[in-house]
Order: sequence, then structure tokens, then C-alpha cells
Amino acid sequence: MNNSYDIIVVGAGHAGCEAAAAAANLGSKVLLITMNLNAIAQMSCNPAMGGVAKGQIVREIDALGGYSGIVSDKSAIQFKMLNKSKGPAMWSPRTQNDRMVFSNEWRMMLEQTENVDFWQDMVVELILEGGKCVGVKTQIGVEFKAKSVILTNGTFLNGLIHIGEKQFGGGRAGDRPSIGLTEQLVSLGFESGRMKTGTPPRVDGRSLDYSKMEEQPGDDKPSKFSFSNTSILTKQRSCHITYTNDDVHDILRTGFEKSPMFQGRIQGLGPRYCPSIEDKIVRFSERNRHQLFIEPEGWETCEIYVNGFSTSLPEDVQYKAMHLIPGFEKAKMFRPGYAIEYDFFQPTQLNITLETKGVEGLYFAGQINGTTGYEEAAGQGLMAGINAHLKINNEEPFILKRNEAYIGVLLDDLITKGTTEPYRMFTSRAEYRILLRQDNADIRLTERSFNLGLASKDRLDKVLSKQSDIESVIKSFERTSVDPKEVNEYLSTYSSSPLKQKVKASSVLTRPNVKITELMSYSEDLNNSLNSFSEEVIESAEILMKYDGYISREKDVADKMMRLENIKLHDNIDFSKLSSLSAEAVEKLNKVKPNTLGQASRISGISASDISVLMVHMGR
Amino acid sequence: MNNSYDIIVVGAGHAGCEAAAAAANLGSKVLLITMNLNAIAQMSCNPAMGGVAKGQIVREIDALGGYSGIVSDKSAIQFKMLNKSKGPAMWSPRTQNDRMVFSNEWRMMLEQTENVDFWQDMVVELILEGGKCVGVKTQIGVEFKAKSVILTNGTFLNGLIHIGEKQFGGGRAGDRPSIGLTEQLVSLGFESGRMKTGTPPRVDGRSLDYSKMEEQPGDDKPSKFSFSNTSILTKQRSCHITYTNDDVHDILRTGFEKSPMFQGRIQGLGPRYCPSIEDKIVRFSERNRHQLFIEPEGWETCEIYVNGFSTSLPEDVQYKAMHLIPGFEKAKMFRPGYAIEYDFFQPTQLNITLETKGVEGLYFAGQINGTTGYEEAAGQGLMAGINAHLKINNEEPFILKRNEAYIGVLLDDLITKGTTEPYRMFTSRAEYRILLRQDNADIRLTERSFNLGLASKDRLDKVLSKQSDIESVIKSFERTSVDPKEVNEYLSTYSSSPLKQKVKASSVLTRPNVKITELMSYSEDLNNSLNSFSEEVIESAEILMKYDGYISREKDVADKMMRLENIKLHDNIDFSKLSSLSAEAVEKLNKVKPNTLGQASRISGISASDISVLMVHMGR
Repeated sequence: MNNSYDIIVVGAGHAGCEAAAAAANLGSKVLLITMNLNAIAQMSCNPAMGGVAKGQIVREIDALGGYSGIVSDKSAIQFKMLNKSKGPAMWSPRTQNDRMVFSNEWRMMLEQTENVDFWQDMVVELILEGGKCVGVKTQIGVEFKAKSVILTNGTFLNGLIHIGEKQFGGGRAGDRPSIGLTEQLVSLGFESGRMKTGTPPRVDGRSLDYSKMEEQPGDDKPSKFSFSNTSILTKQRSCHITYTNDDVHDILRTGFEKSPMFQGRIQGLGPRYCPSIEDKIVRFSERNRHQLFIEPEGWETCEIYVNGFSTSLPEDVQYKAMHLIPGFEKAKMFRPGYAIEYDFFQPTQLNITLETKGVEGLYFAGQINGTTGYEEAAGQGLMAGINAHLKINNEEPFILKRNEAYIGVLLDDLITKGTTEPYRMFTSRAEYRILLRQDNADIRLTERSFNLGLASKDRLDKVLSKQSDIESVIKSFERTSVDPKEVNEYLSTYSSSPLKQKVKASSVLTRPNVKITELMSYSEDLNNSLNSFSEEVIESAEILMKYDGYISREKDVADKMMRLENIKLHDNIDFSKLSSLSAEAVEKLNKVKPNTLGQASRISGISASDISVLMVHMGR
Repeated sequence: MNNSYDIIVVGAGHAGCEAAAAAANLGSKVLLITMNLNAIAQMSCNPAMGGVAKGQIVREIDALGGYSGIVSDKSAIQFKMLNKSKGPAMWSPRTQNDRMVFSNEWRMMLEQTENVDFWQDMVVELILEGGKCVGVKTQIGVEFKAKSVILTNGTFLNGLIHIGEKQFGGGRAGDRPSIGLTEQLVSLGFESGRMKTGTPPRVDGRSLDYSKMEEQPGDDKPSKFSFSNTSILTKQRSCHITYTNDDVHDILRTGFEKSPMFQGRIQGLGPRYCPSIEDKIVRFSERNRHQLFIEPEGWETCEIYVNGFSTSLPEDVQYKAMHLIPGFEKAKMFRPGYAIEYDFFQPTQLNITLETKGVEGLYFAGQINGTTGYEEAAGQGLMAGINAHLKINNEEPFILKRNEAYIGVLLDDLITKGTTEPYRMFTSRAEYRILLRQDNADIRLTERSFNLGLASKDRLDKVLSKQSDIESVIKSFERTSVDPKEVNEYLSTYSSSPLKQKVKASSVLTRPNVKITELMSYSEDLNNSLNSFSEEVIESAEILMKYDGYISREKDVADKMMRLENIKLHDNIDFSKLSSLSAEAVEKLNKVKPNTLGQASRISGISASDISVLMVHMGR
């Protein structure tokens, strides 16, 4: 049996799929092992991709040559750019997706990827030789050998589902848990923990009364995730909004005495920013309603995801409470909400490449690292796939810095700070978020990925042409003056003081409220020189011009920080020998083993004086 | 919680889906419970519907208003009318299907069926009251009440998967087994047994060399299953044929000492006519090759089903042997073949309505009754759904006799004879198979289904118009004479003696080899009067004219048999009191409790003299 691969990826969720695709596209022979080939890239939670900070990650994955953006576009039933009224750092693309199409498209993309083989089976053991991970054993009894193994087990490791007082093993509703791996990893010295996540009931859309809810259509002019030539939606399906109320909360409270969370049966911590409805009632007891976002599961299916109503209360309580929500008076459930507990491994046990420190050749990506979210998982999978490939080819690791990508922030946060609750990305986690915008992910990342051999030449050419177009637009604005006769009326609509003479377009644009497309429509000169450029280019140029000050300032700060970032710490520093370090610093530094002085500075408990000690030690 | 239904269907495979649809369309409130809503109507075995005798069943299901024909047409990637060179009793439609589309279409059809609700969960217990089945309990802990429960558990009851010396619980590769129900049923007095079935490896089509195989395209002029207005395929995907050889067999033999079948670890009997490759090697040791039918799993996917290579030998033996098959030299497996053992219940424990004799309100359909095959399961599901609905509405049961439908043969065989090995339909099981043709399933059955309230008025109108068209065609043939000048040249091509004068077209048609469309093309009169009729009508008329003798003879035999069939035996006959019966007859009659004298006559061990005794007892 041809059981020898370069890289084995265990699990075919968002992390596993990206890992397999990236490693294979770089040239590694990859085996993707999943417990069920019919359930590749299942959206186990809500049927949507992107959103605040997460949309930026999808754009970054796409810019790097990953598949999540393409699959999201192909399966989208709605597109919305969130936070469009805020600054461009906050603009976040999101799609609603057809769950079945999403899964099918991922499978088709992977099937069409040379170098990816598939195996349906459960991995029950890692094969180790001389402290290195060199393969896996499966439930069927097959041994597969590889130079690297990437674990992306999601919520399956010892998965335990809770609904009210009931609990039973499961990796997801309808699926078995995966047993055996945690125990082996712990015996190898890994520190494991429990986390929990939850999901709301799925209901029958035929039983809902949408006239009692607010319709949430997609954007009038939908965009998309991928920088490649995927299609723009020509029709969209709406979501809806409704609200809980005091009556709903009162019914839910009757289930608290059987709640697995409140009664202590669930030990793992859940995602803080995706709390269950019972959690929200308790934590925000002053609020008499909570918003629910009603998401269709696809183009045609009547299955509906009740976002915001995640719960592990007994199913009869869920049912009764739900019926008091406007529009849900006659709702029929397909399945109740539930909580699921699963094993994760503290990500401080990883290098920035997502290779474990303890076992060479073993990588972790996704929820196994204590994260939550499809996008966070996919981003990790991509980076693990890339770095596993680079390592076995003796190439330098591919590291994204915190000022280069949300994915860089994600990985640095995980390995430096660890996490005690499911880690979710936010714009607030990024200190340079005006640099890490969704519109410039390709400009930030595609050339680097091309240099690796991942992003195609075609992708690179697109970015270079976009970049030169943007520069042309900016130059035109700097070169062209606008005429008071043409634009004063426009300026007055924003109570912006009228021009007295011709003024450079670039300086008019920086006035508050002035928008590039509006200004262009009033100035014949501008319009003539710019109307051949794409909306995407015009928009990026506008951001660069209007936010130039912020962008330059963040770049300066980042450059300063990079000086620390560029000071590498040797692998073998024994921090206990640096007598001037605080005891806490010694302990934490020895645990995290930071790669750079910058990373050391972000470890909680490391003070500025500890950093000085390290700088002295490094001879600076 | 609204937990009260008319009918609960447990399981959403071919049987469960048809049962739910039929009962709901008749007006019952139906709850369909499945362990995984994403796996509705999975083709767990090969991606094809129909075939010899099975194609007739699909046509019957369609004629009765079931969905299998429509779903098969919508998901077809290839259509073939098998046995077209044989008599019309043998003509059997078959489609190759896209497995994912098949499943999706079934789900969409059910979602669009009013009265069908869905619940994702595992049923672990039946609720009984006063000896009647009145509901189910689930793993989550929900109780659903109903007037009837239909169990369609497929291979899931205590499912145990075998590959070489490995065995582990599973309802299907990738899915959990269902635990608990068998034990309860046995405690209620049901007799359970074990059966086994198997499935071949799935392989990566990208790794096959089709140039070494024979292409098997679909029909040049594809037809379809449904009598409704589903579309005809405009493009098709080919299958391929290749063969095993002595080298393949030699390798397979090296695994025999680890074979779960040959070493006695599998106790259940497998399907005789779908044997594993190792079985074929042993049972047909004189043959040095076996045919393999290479079936694509869909339009786009590279997954391939290796029909004919079903096996439970160790996966490395499967792999090595497979590589010696022409075209498979570099084959990559997605998963190995395996055998699965599961619980079934001897179907002699059922009434002809598929209600169990032991527990009122409890119905069994599909593999739980010891059958094999999607079509056999679907046919049972449809009949169980119809009859469960009729019973709770105090209406007469809907029974199909052996001269009315293959489905009638199927149910009668099951409840009368029982089965010790997986029961599969064959044309040879039907004594009136020239009556039970695929082309006349609508004429045989649609009016009856319409009278029940299941088949739509539209369907009935179509049948009536088809029927009158056929009669018109036949009348035209009886009325029209053909001219020697026009047809003698045609007749000579079949060495058929030339006409000397004008002769009735109907008599020329009955000559061997003469084909209706060919004859029409030579006779201007025929052509003028018939060219407005559809091919379907012309074909049916041809069959009726050419096979008139056979058809009439079978009808006569059937009519005679029906006299026995119409003699009902009371429910409460105590056969032990009929002293002239043989001891064997008493035992078997008391066990089977036949409904009619006809059914009694088909019980193995019942002699003609036993039938005479019963006739005397019935006062004839």
C-alpha cells in the first residue's frame, strides 16, 4: 500500500482543508484523512463566512492563495460589507452561504488539487520515531507515514454534547467523537484542557412568520471575497432580525436548574463573544431583549439558523421559549441547540509555525489550539500547511508579522499569550489595524506568497497592476486641480467652506465627508482622467489619500516595534541564568520561549526592565 | 413542545423517505427522524438506481406517486434500458446517479412536502401503551407521540463493520450504529437475526487508466424513470468495465486467513447475488476473471465506485490485489471495502401492510425486513407509509397483488416465505412478469393510487390519455392494411416471406423481428395515422400487439390464482384444530397466519392437500 506522504492532514474542516490545499499547491504529497468524506468543510455553526476582523482574514487567506475566499464566493447567497459607515480599518466583508454548496465546492476544489489524496477513517494514534512524528495509525488499522502531521481535530477530540441534563459523546450533532489522540498527546507531555462551544436550534423556515421580523437584505452592490475572478452575486437571499423579550427570558430561566453550564457539568470555558442566550440573560440582566439574526442555510433549503439563540438548556425549555419570539410563534425545530465540550491544547506549546515544541514534525491548527471561528481555523490551517511544507524542504519558515496580517496577530497572540477561553479575532486585537485592511490584503501578502511558490503569477500580475493603478489615481489627484465653479455646490451640501480658487483635488478630498466618487462626478478633469479605473482601485486610492495621516503614523510605530521584532532570541537561552530577570519573567520566558524580543515584550508579566535585561544580554 | 404526530418515520434512507412522503401526501402529519439531516437518502452502496427487476420497482413507485423516480431522474448522470434485446418483460431501466445530488434532491423534495417535519436525533426506544406502539424516545431525551411508528433502520441496528481482522461499531462507514432498539424489540417477543452486506473500495478516478477499460456509455436515446415531466438527459457520463484476473485472485487469497467471513467472525448471511470478490473466487473457482463495473459517483467528483469488488479482506490485501487489475495499476483508495453486520427481523412477523403482527401501530420497512437494495427498501417504505396512514384513518389496507406489481411480489414473498439471506428482487420471482412490465407501471397502478388520494389528478389524466392513445394505435394497426409494394423489401431483410396482397398491419407486426417503427416507416398509411403519437405510446402498443398471446395466457393464469387469492382466511383460525392438516402445515400456518388461501398456498411446506382441507373448512 502506498502509505508514504510528505504531509498528513488529520481532519477536513476549515483548517484541514486549507492546510492540505496549501501544502499540496507548494508541491508536497498530501494525504487528507477525514472521518467522513461526505462531510468535508461542514459549516457546523452558522452558515456565513467573514464578518468583523474575520472578513479581513478571509481576504488575507485569499491573497495568500488559500481557497476559503473562492469557496465562500461560489457558495454565497448574500454579501454585505459590514461597518461601511465607520473608518476603512473596520470595513469587513461577510457572506451568507449555502451550507451544502460550501461543502461541495470545497470538496471539488480539493479533488481538483493535484497532490491531495483522500482517506476516510479515524486517526487514533500518532506514530513517533526518535521524538519525531512520522505518521498516524487509523481505526481501520492502516499506518500512514509522513514527514509531517498536521492535526486539525476541531471539536472532535473526546467531544461531549450537552443538552439539559443529557450528555453523550459526539464530535458534532450527528457525528461520532474522536477518541485516543488526546491521551497519547498527554502521555507525550502535552498540556490539554477542555473548552466548550455551543450552537442554537435549527428550525423549519416554513413555520416562521417573517412579517414580524426586520428583513436584512444583502448589499445593493454586492462585492466578494476573492481577489481572483469569482463571480459577483446577481441575486441574494435575505436574513431577518427579531428579538427575545422578557417572556422568552422568563421561560429560559425555568431551565436554569437543569443547565449543564450553570450546574457545573460543563467545565470548559465557552467563547466570550458568542455567549449562549442563557449566559446573556444572566450577564446582561438589565437588558430586556437580545437580538437574533435569522440566517437561511442555503438557496433552497427551509432550514434556518437562529443566530444569537445558542443554548444548552433542555430542549423543551428551548422550544417553549422560542415560541414567544416574534415570528417564531409556530416554529418547528429540526434539532435543539446544544453545547459541546472538547479537548484543546494550550497554544503556547507551539512555535510560530504552528509546529509543536514538544514533537518535531507535528503541527496543530484550528480549534485544537483553543480558537473559535471558521476563519481563524482556516488561517491557521493555511500557515501550518505552508510551514510544514517549508520545513521538510529545509526552507526558512513563513512568518507573518503583526503589522502584516491579522493572521500574524492571530498566531503571535496564540503562541505568546495562550488562551483560557476560545480565542476569536477582533479588530481591537490588531495594533496596526489601519494597515491591515480588507482592501489591501492582496497588496500586503500576494507577492510574499508568490515568492513562496503558492500564489500564482496571474495573481501577482493582478496585484501589481492594481497597485500601479492606485498610484496613478493618487498622482492624478495630486496633479489635478478642481474648479470652484464645478465643486462649490457639492461642498456646500456638506457645509464645507467653498473654494475661492482652483485647489488640488487631493487636498479637497481630505476634507470631512467628501467622497472620491462624488468629487469625481463634479469635476470634469478628474472624471476624464479616472473613469477608466475600477471601483476597487478608486476605493483603495481614496482610503490611502483620506487616511494618509493615520496610515503613516501606524507605519512609524510598527517600524519602531519591528526593531524589537528583528532582534532574534536564540532557541537555547536558559533564562534562569539571567539573574537580573524577575522570577515571573524567567518562568514565563522559559515556558513561551519567544523567538524575538518583540514577542517577549508581549508576554503578560514581562516588564520593560525585563526587556532591557534581554537587550543587554543580546549585546545591545 | 409539539410532539404529537400521526406517523413517525425512523430513518431517512430510501425506505424512510418514501414512507414519510407517502403518508404526508395522503394527509398524515409526519415526523421524519434521522441521525443526520445532512445524510438524507445516502446511496451507501453503488451510485445507481434501477436495473433488472429493480427498475420496474422504481417505475411502480413513481406510478404510485412516490418520489424515487423523480429524484433518480433529477440526479441521473446516465440512463440505460437494460435487456433491450430480450423480451419486454425483461426491459429494465437503470440510472447512474450523482450521489450528492441524489441526496440533496430527496431532501429538497421532502422539505417541499407539506406535513413532513424533521428531527435530527437517534431513536433509542419505542413507547408502548396497551400493546400498541404510540411513540418513540430519543437519545436527546425527547418523547414524540404518534398513532403509528415506521422503523426503517437500514444497516444501523447494532451495525458492526469488518475489515480484515478489525471490527468496530458503525451504521455505515463514517456513521455511528444505532443501539437499543433491537434489544427492546426482542424483549417484546420479536425474533431478530443478523445479516451482512458489503461494499467495495472507493477510489480516486484521477489515478485510473481508462484506456485499459471498456467504455460503457449510456443509451443513445436515453429515457427516464418518472411518468411525470422530469427532463431527459442531454449529456451523460460513462461507466467502464474491467476484469480481475488470476494474479488478482492469488493476492486476494493471501488475505483469506484474515477474512472475517471465512474465519467465522461474521455470522450473518450476505446477499447471494451481490457476493464479495473473495466469495466469487471461492464459489466460482473455475473462473479466471470476474467483471468489474467502474461507476463514477457524480458529475464532477473524482470518486469512483468499484462495483463487483466488494470485500472485507484486510485493506492492504485489497490494495495490492486492486493494483493488478487493468487500469488500476496506480489506483489510490479513498477508503477500503468493508462488510457490515446488522440486525434484521424475520418478515414473517409482519402483515401484508408491513405492520408487525406483535405490536399494533408498528411498521417495518427496508433492510430491517431482511431485504437488500435501494428499490426494494423504497417500495416497502411507500407501502408502509400508505398503509400506516390508511389504518389510522380506519380505511381498508392498500394491497398490491402478485399479478399487479413487483412490489406486490416483494411484500407477499417477505411475509409469506420470510428470508434467511438478504432478499433481492429478480424478474424470476414474479410469476406474471409479462404483466409487470416497466412500460405499463402507470397503467397498472396510477389509477389505484389516485383513488387512494396519493397520485395527482394530473398523473391520472396522463395515464388515461396514454391508455387511449395506445388503444388508438392498436386500432389503427387492426384497421390499416399494408401494401406489399411498400413493405416486402423490408420484410426480406429479416427473411420474412413477402406479402402477396394487402394484409392487416397487426398481423404483419406479429412476425418475428418486425419492429413497429420500422414497419411504420415503410407504410405511408401507418405513418400518416400514427406519427403524432409519442414513442412511449408506440412502444407500449407494440408490446401489447406482439406479445398479446403471452399476455393473455398470463392473465388467465393470474385470474385463476386470484380465485384462491380472493378466499380470505379469518384472522383467528386455529389451524391446530383442523385435524386433516399435516403437522408441518399447522406449524407454518400458525406462524405465518396467511390472509388468503393464495398466500397459504405459497408457504413452503404447504401441500395441495393442505389447501383442499382449508377450502373445505372455508365451506367451498
